[in-house]
Amino acid sequence: MPKVFVEPIGITLTVDEQENLLDGLVRAQIDIPTDCAGRGTCGKCLVRLGAGELTAPTERELKRIPEKLRAEGWRLACQAYPRSARVSIEVRGTAGQRRILTTSKLTHGASHPAVCTRRVQLEAPTLADKRSDLERLDQGLGGVEVPLHVLQELPATLRDGKWKVTATCYGKRVIDVHPGERERECYGVAVDIGTSKVIAYLFDLRAGALIDQEAVENPQMRYGEDVISRIAHAAQHNETALLAAAVRDGINANLKALYERQDIHVNHVCDMTVVGNTAMHHLALGLSPVGLGQAPFAPAAAEPLTLRASELGIDMNPDGGVHFPPPIAGFVGSDALAVVAATHLAGKKKPSMAIDIGTNTEIALAHDGRVTVTSCASGPAFEGYQIRNGMKAVAGAIERVKITPDGEATEIVTIAGAEPIGICGSGVVDLLAGLVHAGVVDKSGRMQLDHPRVRKGEEGNEYLVTEGPHGDIVFTQHDVRSLQLAKGAIHAGWELLMASLEVPLEQLDTVYIAGAFGNYLDLSAAQYLGLFPPVETKRVAFVGNAAGVGAQMALIDARARKRMARLRDRIEFLDLATDKRFLDVFSSRLGFASD
Amino acid sequence: MPKVFVEPIGITLTVDEQENLLDGLVRAQIDIPTDCAGRGTCGKCLVRLGAGELTAPTERELKRIPEKLRAEGWRLACQAYPRSARVSIEVRGTAGQRRILTTSKLTHGASHPAVCTRRVQLEAPTLADKRSDLERLDQGLGGVEVPLHVLQELPATLRDGKWKVTATCYGKRVIDVHPGERERECYGVAVDIGTSKVIAYLFDLRAGALIDQEAVENPQMRYGEDVISRIAHAAQHNETALLAAAVRDGINANLKALYERQDIHVNHVCDMTVVGNTAMHHLALGLSPVGLGQAPFAPAAAEPLTLRASELGIDMNPDGGVHFPPPIAGFVGSDALAVVAATHLAGKKKPSMAIDIGTNTEIALAHDGRVTVTSCASGPAFEGYQIRNGMKAVAGAIERVKITPDGEATEIVTIAGAEPIGICGSGVVDLLAGLVHAGVVDKSGRMQLDHPRVRKGEEGNEYLVTEGPHGDIVFTQHDVRSLQLAKGAIHAGWELLMASLEVPLEQLDTVYIAGAFGNYLDLSAAQYLGLFPPVETKRVAFVGNAAGVGAQMALIDARARKRMARLRDRIEFLDLATDKRFLDVFSSRLGFASD
Repeated sequence: MPKVFVEPIGITLTVDEQENLLDGLVRAQIDIPTDCAGRGTCGKCLVRLGAGELTAPTERELKRIPEKLRAEGWRLACQAYPRSARVSIEVRGTAGQRRILTTSKLTHGASHPAVCTRRVQLEAPTLADKRSDLERLDQGLGGVEVPLHVLQELPATLRDGKWKVTATCYGKRVIDVHPGERERECYGVAVDIGTSKVIAYLFDLRAGALIDQEAVENPQMRYGEDVISRIAHAAQHNETALLAAAVRDGINANLKALYERQDIHVNHVCDMTVVGNTAMHHLALGLSPVGLGQAPFAPAAAEPLTLRASELGIDMNPDGGVHFPPPIAGFVGSDALAVVAATHLAGKKKPSMAIDIGTNTEIALAHDGRVTVTSCASGPAFEGYQIRNGMKAVAGAIERVKITPDGEATEIVTIAGAEPIGICGSGVVDLLAGLVHAGVVDKSGRMQLDHPRVRKGEEGNEYLVTEGPHGDIVFTQHDVRSLQLAKGAIHAGWELLMASLEVPLEQLDTVYIAGAFGNYLDLSAAQYLGLFPPVETKRVAFVGNAAGVGAQMALIDARARKRMARLRDRIEFLDLATDKRFLDVFSSRLGFASD
Repeated sequence: MPKVFVEPIGITLTVDEQENLLDGLVRAQIDIPTDCAGRGTCGKCLVRLGAGELTAPTERELKRIPEKLRAEGWRLACQAYPRSARVSIEVRGTAGQRRILTTSKLTHGASHPAVCTRRVQLEAPTLADKRSDLERLDQGLGGVEVPLHVLQELPATLRDGKWKVTATCYGKRVIDVHPGERERECYGVAVDIGTSKVIAYLFDLRAGALIDQEAVENPQMRYGEDVISRIAHAAQHNETALLAAAVRDGINANLKALYERQDIHVNHVCDMTVVGNTAMHHLALGLSPVGLGQAPFAPAAAEPLTLRASELGIDMNPDGGVHFPPPIAGFVGSDALAVVAATHLAGKKKPSMAIDIGTNTEIALAHDGRVTVTSCASGPAFEGYQIRNGMKAVAGAIERVKITPDGEATEIVTIAGAEPIGICGSGVVDLLAGLVHAGVVDKSGRMQLDHPRVRKGEEGNEYLVTEGPHGDIVFTQHDVRSLQLAKGAIHAGWELLMASLEVPLEQLDTVYIAGAFGNYLDLSAAQYLGLFPPVETKRVAFVGNAAGVGAQMALIDARARKRMARLRDRIEFLDLATDKRFLDVFSSRLGFASD
């Protein structure tokens, strides 16, 4: 049955061929607007075809869809039926429907993959032409490198195909030759290794289209929640190999799910790009991250590297390539480079900033031809970790809460509408900003015991958010302090970066907020806390997983790899660890008063 | 205890440090001349130092050894004691002492190995210099390629060595980095894969010196005695992989013996060159030889190839290189190229020929800047195979026999003086030439029943050579026919080659006879049969395993690999299979009359 990948939600539906797209979307509980019960008259259930084939537009569609939209590929879901094994569509206005942590509003650009398929008709040997099989292929393809195991199959393949063969090449390397001229399927995967999540995007490289995606928890979580504790673990126990195996397992787990769901053969996946912070980059390569844990924080490798999948134990075509864009510095990884590339920051005419909030927050600022990045250790508090009742953004997490002027918690919204069991990152921001605004937490961060919802808990004062089915959900003094440290570091980061490039606040044009965290955030609350520069709301763009988009750019366009390598060499690094101004600015930004 | 490698015998002695070289040689039953019982007065026990160290020359040596010989490195074995772990010496006049099948009188030339050791002192990272470890090494070595597993060890190695390290490079590829500046041992192995034997020569690449050698029977013998039957086996049973594994096992068996005897670590063997006929070349690479078994006999690969040892499953440093000089044609392998290179045939001023007799006999002729080779299917008869009482050249084989003018067999010499159990190649030539000369076999090859030693056997007439302890040793009519076919093919080969290059017999300057077979041959008997062109005896040079020397040249001098590749492109191939003259010349050379 046809599979329909739905962007930007990032899920795949299996749709009966007798079933139109609207039926499939409704069955999957995706809330798509429709007023005519699927009769094709309201013209609201618009979806845009990305890849694959649908039935031809009906007369009702021709009547209901404006010509401009039709030209862009928009269709009515109620009128369209899948007509290819895989279809990718885009839906509109689905924010809040599901947790979408892996998609982005940025686009991955044009397709020019490193892998290409080439058909050749070679001449058969004769008594007068005894060139070797290898020489024939080499001349037919115009100079290639043939790995031993491909060479070993070559004599039989050439004769099976009566000297007409189709070769799959990774750059100059021939990774497969098969008889005849049928083009094989050819896929690639862009991987973003986050500290807590490993995300994989599956592309059909021939179509240049995203066809599915998958995310798993980073299996390294068992060695520590943050990068520093994992580096310490690797150093103390000499267990680089274990940590490296965990990253590889995470990538392979994603691949397994994608292959099963899409019914793809492992040998047809020929290319991969991998981005991540420098520690993840090192561990994915099996390199010890120990040097990253101590001054002067020199990386083991910071060059663009392309390896064969077999060298890394990645479950794809063993001769396929795995490309690692270069990290920028010890604490600024290739994911930060990918964000700068995906936001096209370096090409902006006006000063622009990109912020990727996470356990380590990277901030990049471009101005007047210069791009400078910095990194601040913000800790995992804004991701819901190390917060008493913090949790990941899954069902039951409080993602929105309003604090009234007298300090009451109202309008509590949980993910999936489930009974509240904890607070995720966006809920934490709402809480902190609301409590500061209401004066329940003062400008220095002290929680006021005289408020009726504040009580003495085991670890100091705590604010009762709500009573959940599994017990009280509280927000503690300690939580406030953790968040203060994080926001102080981030605030100091963008402030010093702007000072370095001499960009006054009023000149700052666009602020791109990357990362899963930003996607569900109340911008005004975040700005109130000083997490982001206080620019007009319209100048802030939440771009989702921009690092993933950078990895996708490099995947589908081999030229982008070179551009990213050159970009990396242009990027300057502002080292807060050695910047004399940092401690002063950091201290003054811990509080909530002077913003 | 020091190990002493003795050339040209090709054995290794273990010598106590208190023991002089003469004691060691005598203990190993090597018959070295001495008249003074080791007192240093007769001056006869001359040996020449090749590699390693001996004690300084004594006063007796200074008195007894002429200055010219001293300058060439000659010493008295009774006065010299080893002073290094490995010593290589050359002895004189030991022909007939042992079966020496693997050495050659040709020399392997100057040393310029593909593997080199380089020490570098790198700068430690500072807060101002955060270049990656990889970048430091790359810049320190001036641009190198670092395999993943070397990169994975690099951070620890650089810090262990306090940024002073020693790298072993195979060309641009770094195959090992270790802390400090101690240079590691570095060995290479030249391999000659014959149809019946796999021979390995172990070199100390730093000294450029041969230190040991080993030979095993080609494990493919179980799939057929000759190349054609093995190709047929591969084709019928689709068993290329099995045949390929057999070659690899043969190489690895040699390596194991060498490593154990010389106490060498597998990782210290970093380079290998492999020559062989085209079928062996293909099978060593795991390539199907099937194309070589049918017209137009196109090889799967005929380019110079350099692979990593790990790709081939060779037991040496996994990142070390294994270089295959190119074969010339379907039936003219890289061993023939190696013979042409080792004899420097292409550079000869006067017309010169090289003949490598085997199951397949390759003949090369150089004249006036052209080099042409041909190949004739001579069968294994001259190697003692497919001869009723034929056997390999081991103890008990009749290697010399004289036939009196009245057809009696006398002066029978067996290898190691053992009781006769069969006849090896050189004995077969003596027998056939003698019987033809005596008229027991007539010019057409018919054995005359009227001779008292000729009787009717199960398969026709047979000549009783001698009565051995295990039964009569006979030479049959069928044996004569097998040898006629072989000699007819060889004779037609060199005759047509000379016709092609328009070289009259009287202009032919030197004939190099390569291969184990030639080493023990009665030249006049062979010439009488027409195996070699009838030039003066002094113009014939038995050069032993010249193919092995070619492999050694390529091993110890990376530049020789390029020279051999260029040489290969220059060499013309005379294809007897399609030459219209062949059948006529072959038929007329079957008999023994018109020579």
